[in-house]
Amino acid sequence: MAGDQDIQPVRWHNDTLQLLDQRILPDKVSYLELNTVQAVADAIRDMVVRGAPAIGITAAYGVVIAARQRYRESTTGWKALLEPDLELLSAARPTAVNLNWALRQMQQRVQNIDGDPKQALLAEATYIHTADIAANRTMGELGAALIEPGSGVLTHCNAGALATGGYGTALGVIRSGWEKGLIDKVFADETRPWLQGARLTAWELLQDNIPVTLLVEGAVSSLLQTGWVQWFIVGSDRIAANGDVANKIGTLAGAIQARHYGVKVMVVAPTSTIDMKAPNGQAIPIESRDPDEVLAMVGKGIAAQGSQAWNPVFDITPASLVNVIVTEKGIVEAPDSTKMAALMQA
Amino acid sequence: MAGDQDIQPVRWHNDTLQLLDQRILPDKVSYLELNTVQAVADAIRDMVVRGAPAIGITAAYGVVIAARQRYRESTTGWKALLEPDLELLSAARPTAVNLNWALRQMQQRVQNIDGDPKQALLAEATYIHTADIAANRTMGELGAALIEPGSGVLTHCNAGALATGGYGTALGVIRSGWEKGLIDKVFADETRPWLQGARLTAWELLQDNIPVTLLVEGAVSSLLQTGWVQWFIVGSDRIAANGDVANKIGTLAGAIQARHYGVKVMVVAPTSTIDMKAPNGQAIPIESRDPDEVLAMVGKGIAAQGSQAWNPVFDITPASLVNVIVTEKGIVEAPDSTKMAALMQA
Repeated sequence: MAGDQDIQPVRWHNDTLQLLDQRILPDKVSYLELNTVQAVADAIRDMVVRGAPAIGITAAYGVVIAARQRYRESTTGWKALLEPDLELLSAARPTAVNLNWALRQMQQRVQNIDGDPKQALLAEATYIHTADIAANRTMGELGAALIEPGSGVLTHCNAGALATGGYGTALGVIRSGWEKGLIDKVFADETRPWLQGARLTAWELLQDNIPVTLLVEGAVSSLLQTGWVQWFIVGSDRIAANGDVANKIGTLAGAIQARHYGVKVMVVAPTSTIDMKAPNGQAIPIESRDPDEVLAMVGKGIAAQGSQAWNPVFDITPASLVNVIVTEKGIVEAPDSTKMAALMQA
Repeated sequence: MAGDQDIQPVRWHNDTLQLLDQRILPDKVSYLELNTVQAVADAIRDMVVRGAPAIGITAAYGVVIAARQRYRESTTGWKALLEPDLELLSAARPTAVNLNWALRQMQQRVQNIDGDPKQALLAEATYIHTADIAANRTMGELGAALIEPGSGVLTHCNAGALATGGYGTALGVIRSGWEKGLIDKVFADETRPWLQGARLTAWELLQDNIPVTLLVEGAVSSLLQTGWVQWFIVGSDRIAANGDVANKIGTLAGAIQARHYGVKVMVVAPTSTIDMKAPNGQAIPIESRDPDEVLAMVGKGIAAQGSQAWNPVFDITPASLVNVIVTEKGIVEAPDSTKMAALMQA
């Protein structure tokens, strides 16, 4: 088994939540301990942890922390006191729907609890966490089955162990395809502005001894033109009911270029990422972040003084540009509303 | 008149060549003095000066420096001694054809010189320099005439005063269109890995009080989707006889996305950039540079240790994705071999 099991972005340890601080990877491997719901919400917003499934899992553990505190405050009134904590967590980041999905799961569990909620909620959060890893393993198999031997792949951002409970979505498929000998070339674009590709994806793959070649996003067309790449494989932060895909800014650019060169697009995400209440991509909120993420890098200003920047951090790839969506429940080729509904009802 | 006249990437001052060091812009405005042909070749290769026309002008002054030295060594044999100097300059960077164009111009002048070559060659280099600025002014007018009032534009890399003798090619059109009130929104992508957009284009436009909004290259599709942008305007390092365009890596990506969203593509370059000996883009050599340009930024490693990178620094946009090429001799809409040949014979 590959070493990916060792990469744990989120862990419950010594009765507290620990997050691998992804802001300082790959320079330092350092866990932050979080003991309040405010600290958990801040960590999500500040991107200590990122990646839709990992955010969901973190929020689930955040509910354990919140409920523990509220139960200390009032053994009878804790459920009502918990409501603003759930809202705080929910508002931490807008685009990833797994956050709200996990909060709903936890909320349902809360309703059925009598007495001290700690053990029951920890069990639920742990279940969400382990189920995510299991889903990734399943998706790894399903996705790899679509890849012809001798293929090259390109990924964007980080949809790996670091973005999930472990193993990864897009990187789960790439790990699985690599182990099976189907993939022989892995490319990752650096993914500005946060450099998830250069910092996180490269780090993860190298931990598993999977060689990876980085490139700037401007070089993606030149790469696809070479014929070295057969699949553009990405994760997602939210998939609409019609198969439109929200994912890290630059995914849409990659998908347009992939279509231009006849390279196939695979989106890998658990069904917790599918938002059947969003009829299409236009219904998905797109987070914009601080322009300084663009204007500065590694703590130093890079742009001319006085420059403004526009920093939307997700984009919507229309279903028409997606060849296949891979979930733990099965794959959807050429996704549309009918096929997505059938998947979710299966 | 806008303040662009003050931006001089290349100048002959105190009887020597001075180059504005573009590696440290916008942090510092600092000129390097160059007194040997080797220093000039190094400066071109190391990107103290960059941009196809500016490289050509620099090489022309480099010939002045080389000939002065060779004439000191031998008043009768200097023309033969000059040959390896011309080769040294020619080899400094492979993609920009203006370099060899300028060297050919200087070489022709050399053939007709008797006695001390200094004044004649300096006059020729100065002519190449001032003619480039004049060409940019003409292209600024011709390009702006294609722009509807109320337009937004996106540019890539830096094809401005810094990349030319002054005023700029793509940025010349944008300056002209802004002055005429035709353009009301200017966007520049940051242009990884060297950040010409964030560092140089933003700096230049702000010097002229033209507001500019930066974005990462991954956000280009999201920008084009908004409808805020009508033209993607770029320079070129070499245009083939069929209208294929070599330009900074990421130009092709921008052109593919522009076509996808019905945004028009304008390439602005003097006829010295057109290489009629290259039948198409495949005949244009594409420079690859040090992977560290991708793996590090502002002097600090950004990628995971052990990562490899692929760093082609130019790409070829096929003529079919170009709506118009603007030169000082006129414009070519929907370029092809016949139209390009007609332009060059005009």
